[in-house]
Amino acid sequence: MNNSNPIGIFDSGIGGLTVVKSLDSSLANENIIYFGDTARVPYGSKSNSTVIEYSKQDAKFLLSKNVKMIVVACNTASSIALESLRKEFEIPVVGMIDPGAKAAIMATKNKKIGVIGTEATVSNKAYSNALLKLDDSINVFEKACPLFVPLAEEGWTDHKATILIAEEYLSELKKEKIDTLILGCTHYPILRNVIQEVIGKNVQLIDSGSAASVEVEAYLAGRGIKNTSNNIGTHQYYVSDVPKKFKQIAERFLGREVDHVNKIDLEELKII
Amino acid sequence: MNNSNPIGIFDSGIGGLTVVKSLDSSLANENIIYFGDTARVPYGSKSNSTVIEYSKQDAKFLLSKNVKMIVVACNTASSIALESLRKEFEIPVVGMIDPGAKAAIMATKNKKIGVIGTEATVSNKAYSNALLKLDDSINVFEKACPLFVPLAEEGWTDHKATILIAEEYLSELKKEKIDTLILGCTHYPILRNVIQEVIGKNVQLIDSGSAASVEVEAYLAGRGIKNTSNNIGTHQYYVSDVPKKFKQIAERFLGREVDHVNKIDLEELKII
Repeated sequence: MNNSNPIGIFDSGIGGLTVVKSLDSSLANENIIYFGDTARVPYGSKSNSTVIEYSKQDAKFLLSKNVKMIVVACNTASSIALESLRKEFEIPVVGMIDPGAKAAIMATKNKKIGVIGTEATVSNKAYSNALLKLDDSINVFEKACPLFVPLAEEGWTDHKATILIAEEYLSELKKEKIDTLILGCTHYPILRNVIQEVIGKNVQLIDSGSAASVEVEAYLAGRGIKNTSNNIGTHQYYVSDVPKKFKQIAERFLGREVDHVNKIDLEELKII
Repeated sequence: MNNSNPIGIFDSGIGGLTVVKSLDSSLANENIIYFGDTARVPYGSKSNSTVIEYSKQDAKFLLSKNVKMIVVACNTASSIALESLRKEFEIPVVGMIDPGAKAAIMATKNKKIGVIGTEATVSNKAYSNALLKLDDSINVFEKACPLFVPLAEEGWTDHKATILIAEEYLSELKKEKIDTLILGCTHYPILRNVIQEVIGKNVQLIDSGSAASVEVEAYLAGRGIKNTSNNIGTHQYYVSDVPKKFKQIAERFLGREVDHVNKIDLEELKII
């Protein structure tokens, strides 16, 4: 494996771009291949077997591009498919759950940690299990927030309706007096300001994507496959549907121009 | 074709059940095969080529069950894929757009008609084209409401946030003083009360699914293939993901017990 080989990142859609943004500031010289499965988004409301099937196809596509590592930049896929991917593929596969859990354990003082995510992530108790494995004296309070993804995609980041919805979703966590809240979906950092305002300024928010980018760096360093180039890395984007819309949203997210958004055929994804 | 053959209905997910409900009261003796493509829902944010590909697969699945007619119980698929389906298949294919447009033309007095739907339906100007073809003196005002589908799926039918979101989406249509509003997505009847309250009691709401069920009856009668049985028809439900959740929601929608929700494999759908 060559150090200059790209890091492969996949998500059900655009949410994983918040992970690209984190990597962009910490590992700016790495080449990145991103795949967003926009023809089948969202994953968060789908069954475990479907999410595993889709995730394997996504990973195989990235492998066909000679990536040196795979980042599952989707909490739903991380919570359901990570073990299957690690069993099937030899290269390192980094998910969102463990890094987010570790960062939350380090941040909490009162040992009361809240987790918000999709229905699939929450019903699989992915974060509860990871947190309790690290420290069984932690109290975990999980809450599914299905409307946050469409609100983020709609760009209603400071709308009054978003505040009302956040108040409804977060009220129980607030009552439990959590001091740390894991944003357990890569879309949620887009709504960070509203979430912070509603849950209270004293609660520390953990962005699982940022936490994962620290783990990516450690993996690369540990295996001696960090890119040693002094040049800024290239980014290539692939989606399974509507590259034009993806480009707009990606440029807004990343705050930089995005070239080369390629649409791949779903049939191609199945054949790989 | 035997008169007792079932009517085939497909939708991207659960929204088409509002159409089943309409048929259930007007054509209670018809047998129904319903397919909800819950592994790939939603269609409304996807590209035309993807929606056409998925719709053809859905229709082929229904044909494999010997249906005598296909109802495209999804406005997005109707607006994009109807002509392709009619070209490819010989049996009658009924969509949502023309019936909804006809009902709106009959209802309006001031010739100002509003249309709400998914991004795909609105950007394709499906209803504008259908309405203006029927009467070119009509003024049409279309508005995409992407958050209505997840709000309906979340069951927030009278939440304050839903009212705020409806106020935002419907404010322009209200200013234009429309007297008729087409609910151009089969999910929207679930939010009917909020929509009626926000747009005003004097505006007539057109449920495209109800309008389509009138057309289904006319088609069957015109071709002499109405079921003449005196027994209540059977319903069979197929989905591409998570039959359990589908069953719960279907029973809430239809107000009756739903047996036989079968999960079919996506691969199977592609091979048909």
